[in-house]
Amino acid sequence: MSKAQIGVIGMAVMGKNLALNIESRGYTVAIYNRTGSKTEQVVAENPDKKLIPSYSLADFVASLEKPRKIILMVKAGMPTDAMISNLLPYLDQDDILIDGGNTYFEDTIRRNKELENSGINFIGMGVSGGEKGALHGPSLMPGGQRAAYDLVAPILQEIAALAVDGDACVSYIGPDGAGHYVKMVHNGIEYGDMELIAESYSLLRNVLGLTVSEIAEVFNEWKQSELSSYLIDITADILTRKDDLDTDQPIVDVILDRAGNKGTGKWSSQSALELGVPQSLITESVYARYISALKDERMAASEILPKPTTKDIKIDKDLYIKKIKEALYFSKVMSYAQGFEQLRVASEHYGWDLQYGELAKIWREGCIIRAQFLQKITDAFETNPELKNLLLDPYFVQITKEYQQSVRDVSALAIQLGEPCPGFTSAITYYDQYRAPVLPANMIQAQRDYFGAHTYERVDKEGNYHYSWYDEE
Amino acid sequence: MSKAQIGVIGMAVMGKNLALNIESRGYTVAIYNRTGSKTEQVVAENPDKKLIPSYSLADFVASLEKPRKIILMVKAGMPTDAMISNLLPYLDQDDILIDGGNTYFEDTIRRNKELENSGINFIGMGVSGGEKGALHGPSLMPGGQRAAYDLVAPILQEIAALAVDGDACVSYIGPDGAGHYVKMVHNGIEYGDMELIAESYSLLRNVLGLTVSEIAEVFNEWKQSELSSYLIDITADILTRKDDLDTDQPIVDVILDRAGNKGTGKWSSQSALELGVPQSLITESVYARYISALKDERMAASEILPKPTTKDIKIDKDLYIKKIKEALYFSKVMSYAQGFEQLRVASEHYGWDLQYGELAKIWREGCIIRAQFLQKITDAFETNPELKNLLLDPYFVQITKEYQQSVRDVSALAIQLGEPCPGFTSAITYYDQYRAPVLPANMIQAQRDYFGAHTYERVDKEGNYHYSWYDEE
Repeated sequence: MSKAQIGVIGMAVMGKNLALNIESRGYTVAIYNRTGSKTEQVVAENPDKKLIPSYSLADFVASLEKPRKIILMVKAGMPTDAMISNLLPYLDQDDILIDGGNTYFEDTIRRNKELENSGINFIGMGVSGGEKGALHGPSLMPGGQRAAYDLVAPILQEIAALAVDGDACVSYIGPDGAGHYVKMVHNGIEYGDMELIAESYSLLRNVLGLTVSEIAEVFNEWKQSELSSYLIDITADILTRKDDLDTDQPIVDVILDRAGNKGTGKWSSQSALELGVPQSLITESVYARYISALKDERMAASEILPKPTTKDIKIDKDLYIKKIKEALYFSKVMSYAQGFEQLRVASEHYGWDLQYGELAKIWREGCIIRAQFLQKITDAFETNPELKNLLLDPYFVQITKEYQQSVRDVSALAIQLGEPCPGFTSAITYYDQYRAPVLPANMIQAQRDYFGAHTYERVDKEGNYHYSWYDEE
Repeated sequence: MSKAQIGVIGMAVMGKNLALNIESRGYTVAIYNRTGSKTEQVVAENPDKKLIPSYSLADFVASLEKPRKIILMVKAGMPTDAMISNLLPYLDQDDILIDGGNTYFEDTIRRNKELENSGINFIGMGVSGGEKGALHGPSLMPGGQRAAYDLVAPILQEIAALAVDGDACVSYIGPDGAGHYVKMVHNGIEYGDMELIAESYSLLRNVLGLTVSEIAEVFNEWKQSELSSYLIDITADILTRKDDLDTDQPIVDVILDRAGNKGTGKWSSQSALELGVPQSLITESVYARYISALKDERMAASEILPKPTTKDIKIDKDLYIKKIKEALYFSKVMSYAQGFEQLRVASEHYGWDLQYGELAKIWREGCIIRAQFLQKITDAFETNPELKNLLLDPYFVQITKEYQQSVRDVSALAIQLGEPCPGFTSAITYYDQYRAPVLPANMIQAQRDYFGAHTYERVDKEGNYHYSWYDEE
């Protein structure tokens, strides 16, 4: 029996689909799962496929061509460490381990270093696109040894999604943890996109009083616009679906308003805080999920805490729909500006040399945040690779000019009506902070010097100064 | 020569002041500093004080009564670890080490465990009040072994600040890292308070066009109100001060609008993210400092990114000052509600059994956030120790009722005028989320189920469901 060109460990849905995707491009794929019955099931379901199942790690490794290329699709954290250490005795120098899980980037940095001592290459690869993406073409974000990437690149390019210009949605991201970091920020941006869509849906519903099918129509129109994206597409689709349990209601109306999370949005915000990057929109989106989870507390609080007194505000429906759309696009731009600023600061901090335009390019297809608008980001960085903030690119300046009044009107009205829009309000607040030549931080610094002698800088000369606030000084 | 009852290591300003504070209560204090010249200087400046200087750790430890009580006032992080391991050979079972630095609470948990194996007690103690507080009476937040705390309690109670009812601002906080955790959240709250004051100052100045001395008058009035607090006091004072470099300008006008930070606000937000607590106001305050630090970028952006088009809005000055004051108080309440929710969740997570009313009590004097209003928090938890969120206490319900319109008006106007108020807007947004019986998280959960099969809960029955979004399912 001939050997497999590549192997996949972990036969949960993502691992299985990735294996089948690779097989479909003409490769023979070795597969292994800790619980053998799952491997048997995959083989049984796919009798004609070039899969080589193994029921021990020794057999699995023996079934692979050298240097071995092994994709790990197991649970992030301890299970990944355990699998690596079980695998290690069977591996040889120059073998390539690829971790395709949702791994915390600092774990990837650590594993890359540890394995490099044994001569094993370790690639941390972000995989986006969900189950269907894994099967039909995901967006792939591999980081690790460049030479090892080059050896697996042909396979990755074949299984990745293809953008409209035919380019595969995969690219070498950078050393050690770069791939998983970029995937983490991708997921943070995804949190932001989803929150902004949810707020738009909520305003259309609660402020304008549209029905679910009317909102579906609005999103169907937005699909054709500059908002064109996978998440807008599925939102439009979701809004047309009826409950499958015969309540005859739209499915959105029977889904409980409690959003879960798998932690990558949180990691993304924690890292922004660590690196000193203002990343308020993603953070507010994470917090919005946390508050949503407090359903019982909210129900109780709603009985006790007063609403704003009702106002008789006349609203032009069509105009307001247009304003919400513009507010959504403006806020999305703020979120990506923050996300790309985070990537820039991280790249400098960790020495990754990230190619920002390239990242936007490989997100154009396959991944959850895929969108027409990403081309604008690629264009911006192609025009000016040194761009410090997306907002300074002429296209985005134009957007801020045209749409800022809408996001101001929508946010101000929402605040008056008691409709929480943390995404929209943090977007316009970030914009107004970022373009402010003077912020009231002089007062904060005065206070810090007053109670902690932390010193201050001056507007008229260089250096650090301390004021004698107390008589005895 | 008689021995010292307690020792202090680290003769930088905080350590020196704490040592002098203890000495002033009648104790003999052993002192040590890594660089001996600093110790010599402290002794030279304080010739008549009962200080026993040492120039080696062996001598320092030998100069102490048993069980030894040693307060470490050295740099947090590695220097603290280094000092502990240098000290360890000279210590005996039952000795008590007290870390009074701004230490990350997880380091304190680790050190407490490690030292307990050697029979050494380890207390992590938050110290707030700045240099003057350390000398005249700080607020102290000690966490660690209860029995060890009881041995040092008499000294701590004598050096701590006294509240208006004569109670010392110190209390046993809880096991291992509890004291440093509480200090960290205290500092996060301090960031929020400072940001809200800065925004108020900015609105008075930029929207109402008040002069610095007129703003000083406003803060002087607020000092007498429910806003009465140390930070409002020093703000009023700061606004009356002239530059000490003969520019004849108010000092606030020559201080650069770039705020620094020492990381405790950031830690506080990172922990809130980790524990799933929506803590948006403190986080926005941290981000506001980060944006302030981007002075050069902001100056450049202000030339390129358009402002809102000017509006002719008539503003009643006195009414608007009142609204800003109410918005400030309302937002402060939201910030403390978030901070105490974080403390509750942390207490459950780490098993600390924090006494929330007691915490508000020991913050009434000595520390930077000392304020009259903390009594309201103590009262709320005394009335209902099981209170889930401060906002549900009758006093705070009343505040939300009376002041919410002001924070809505102030935030909405600020957004329209392009004046960034991340503190105010996140406060009202949090309020509207927390009291919302329904949030648009149903849409987010629908999307998650659509692209990732993450399942959803239903409004009408228990359990987790998955919808068949795709034809092939």
